[in-house]
Amino acid sequence: MRKILLIGAGRSASSLITYLLHKSYTEKLHLTIADISLDLAKNILQNHENGTTLVLDIFNEVERKKAIKNSDIVISMLPAHLHLNIAKDCITYGKNMVTASYISKEMKELNAEVVKNNLIFMNEIGLDPGIDHMSAMQIIDSIRDKGGKMLLFESFTGGLVAPESDDNLWNYKFTWNPRNVVLAGQGGAAKFLQEGRYKYIPYHKLFRRTEILNIDGYGKFEGYANRDSLKYKSVYGLDDILTLYRGTIRRVGYSRAWNIFVQLGMTDDSYTIEDSEHMSYRDFTNSFLAYNPHDSVELKLRHCLKIDQDDIIWEKLLELDIFNPTKKVQLKNATPAQILEKILKDSWTLNEDDKDMIVMQHIFGYELNGKKHQIESSMVCIGDNQTYTAMAKTVGLPVAIAALKILNSEIKTPGVQLPINKEVYEPILKELKENGIIFTEKNMPYLGYNPENLGF
Amino acid sequence: MRKILLIGAGRSASSLITYLLHKSYTEKLHLTIADISLDLAKNILQNHENGTTLVLDIFNEVERKKAIKNSDIVISMLPAHLHLNIAKDCITYGKNMVTASYISKEMKELNAEVVKNNLIFMNEIGLDPGIDHMSAMQIIDSIRDKGGKMLLFESFTGGLVAPESDDNLWNYKFTWNPRNVVLAGQGGAAKFLQEGRYKYIPYHKLFRRTEILNIDGYGKFEGYANRDSLKYKSVYGLDDILTLYRGTIRRVGYSRAWNIFVQLGMTDDSYTIEDSEHMSYRDFTNSFLAYNPHDSVELKLRHCLKIDQDDIIWEKLLELDIFNPTKKVQLKNATPAQILEKILKDSWTLNEDDKDMIVMQHIFGYELNGKKHQIESSMVCIGDNQTYTAMAKTVGLPVAIAALKILNSEIKTPGVQLPINKEVYEPILKELKENGIIFTEKNMPYLGYNPENLGF
Repeated sequence: MRKILLIGAGRSASSLITYLLHKSYTEKLHLTIADISLDLAKNILQNHENGTTLVLDIFNEVERKKAIKNSDIVISMLPAHLHLNIAKDCITYGKNMVTASYISKEMKELNAEVVKNNLIFMNEIGLDPGIDHMSAMQIIDSIRDKGGKMLLFESFTGGLVAPESDDNLWNYKFTWNPRNVVLAGQGGAAKFLQEGRYKYIPYHKLFRRTEILNIDGYGKFEGYANRDSLKYKSVYGLDDILTLYRGTIRRVGYSRAWNIFVQLGMTDDSYTIEDSEHMSYRDFTNSFLAYNPHDSVELKLRHCLKIDQDDIIWEKLLELDIFNPTKKVQLKNATPAQILEKILKDSWTLNEDDKDMIVMQHIFGYELNGKKHQIESSMVCIGDNQTYTAMAKTVGLPVAIAALKILNSEIKTPGVQLPINKEVYEPILKELKENGIIFTEKNMPYLGYNPENLGF
Repeated sequence: MRKILLIGAGRSASSLITYLLHKSYTEKLHLTIADISLDLAKNILQNHENGTTLVLDIFNEVERKKAIKNSDIVISMLPAHLHLNIAKDCITYGKNMVTASYISKEMKELNAEVVKNNLIFMNEIGLDPGIDHMSAMQIIDSIRDKGGKMLLFESFTGGLVAPESDDNLWNYKFTWNPRNVVLAGQGGAAKFLQEGRYKYIPYHKLFRRTEILNIDGYGKFEGYANRDSLKYKSVYGLDDILTLYRGTIRRVGYSRAWNIFVQLGMTDDSYTIEDSEHMSYRDFTNSFLAYNPHDSVELKLRHCLKIDQDDIIWEKLLELDIFNPTKKVQLKNATPAQILEKILKDSWTLNEDDKDMIVMQHIFGYELNGKKHQIESSMVCIGDNQTYTAMAKTVGLPVAIAALKILNSEIKTPGVQLPINKEVYEPILKELKENGIIFTEKNMPYLGYNPENLGF
């Protein structure tokens, strides 16, 4: 039996665990699931004969080293900043390692030692980062192999509610960490390239500069810019590209309504509101509007943000109950962002039967033999239920597949790496396809970055 | 001769030095002006027999201690973070000290020792902080002495260009540190109280929530909120006050136009622009606007920020030349804020004959014997020239007057303090008046915070 150690059994571990247990007979695997809390793990394991659980505090060095020493490969699904000690132990005991996290500076610095020990530390192999890298590089490499020159790369990913569970005006529910949704886009201007020009969007304008996407069978979506598009120049080798843009997907209309919260200042996480505990949702809303002895909170908000009488945005705000004078915040010393998160959770929490959905779309523009071409590649994945969510499948399956392929020496190039090489992405994308994570390619007329298709 | 040591002879030291030299005969003073660079000091000193200059590196402990030991009182006009070593030396050698800076946490912690040594460390005694404290506390105390109860306190200060030198569409020139003007309002939401309600304004809305002020003889001004209004509750003992607001004064229309830069993201100081050195002013402006293959930068900006064809804002932007395709930024790795500062300096630098102006207005609302009252107290100070600026007068004179009154034991309460006690503000305000820094009080009908004077 080959021994796989999985450290961290959170919400995204379900599909990963099930995949490996399913393979355990033919592949002769034993899976040890280590976590501080094992509720989820035990639930999924169901006393499977090829799996065991282990209560592990990763700050306990003795226990951690023992578990790693006793395994053939280590998967860490912990938050990124907790990988480093595990990585160092993996070097000590000569174990390969897989994570779904961005490669940190510290992780990168281990590369020479990892190569020297002929080990593979595969990172960024979840959904985003992960499936985005692999599915993009497969097409970029195929364009280059034909002799094409990349002109444009746009890439969008979003975690949404599945159409069958989509029953609110925002077409959105929390399918992942709500706090990250509230803070999305903060911490600096979004930077990207459009037709050779560097472009910068400040946070307070981010949600008003969306792009529209079409995905066959699922209709229209919108994307707002991620902060970090420029770094993909070097990661994907796109140094001379004219347009480079990465974004987050929402249903059309979400961003324009979300912008109301940004404009009011409700997404600010940098200070606490006085007496937040006892204020009503209405008080909270009013605290961002100028005092006036006569006008209502409603009219002040409409006036401040110029919301017309018949604008659907208004219905979206009412749906969230932000003018309710009796519902209390009940959070002590809370920031605006924390209070907004609480208000949104009232409305955007998944029901027991709700399913989530992952949507990804890449757009590639290139020139080949003097002609310009465009390819759209799209993937939609819908969750089975609230255990095997689309998020758990798309994050967990590539991790599990990578771990098994490293164990089987199908992936063998050593080093601290991310899945941008053919040796890695080809077999993994193939197996993802067999597991229902399927990209559909479409050839399109080349538009470049000319979103409204103007010709005059 | 009593020996005064002035450390730091920057732009705001001119009036301070001249005041003390003028008093040197009757008061038997000798003034030592210590600085790393002495150009300004020598120029003002003009070989005056009661003054000497001293080249001093305040990080040279031996030299610093020698200078302090050899003085009767020390004035530090250095930046706030450089006061601490001087303060400690003043304790060691038993010298009183005066600064125009906010009391830092570290300075405050010296209080027990300062009191024990029967010393006076007078801080926050320039313009703002300084004259604002004194002129406000004089009226607040007089209201309390009558048995009145404070309901409202609003206070505004601004450094502007004098009417006779006001010749651009913004009615603004740089009369002080341009960088601080570009970054004004950044670093957190503005917090204040209006009629008992806490109010919060995010940075990107700050310049759209102005208040209008009238100052007799000078016309209308506008104020935007400072970040820190709430702290004046405890400083001035206004714990039960309903409205508490501090703001910065500009000429009417400035903020609405400045908001264009905020909205575009041009005031951001947190990242650098790619290849900033070689871009034109037009390229810089374009980098904040979406790419479009056909439309002009002008139309994209008008559309993005909804600027009507006949809006005066447009003329203000043209005046600054932000669409110029040939003028180059010529700053390496510059942030948007640094580039904007450079663009503004082209237009907003004072001419040789230009004069500056300081404007301050307080509004006090109170209840006395069941009736509500309101007082407006305003001060305007105009510079004589570019040496004896309004800023130098209003910052330097209260410092100089305080130093002399401490030396003469007219101010005698020991401790690390700011000028909020009658013993301090009464004699200083009296002498400021004799020097042309005059507040005019007006009794008004009580409006409370009801800026449009609505009654229905």
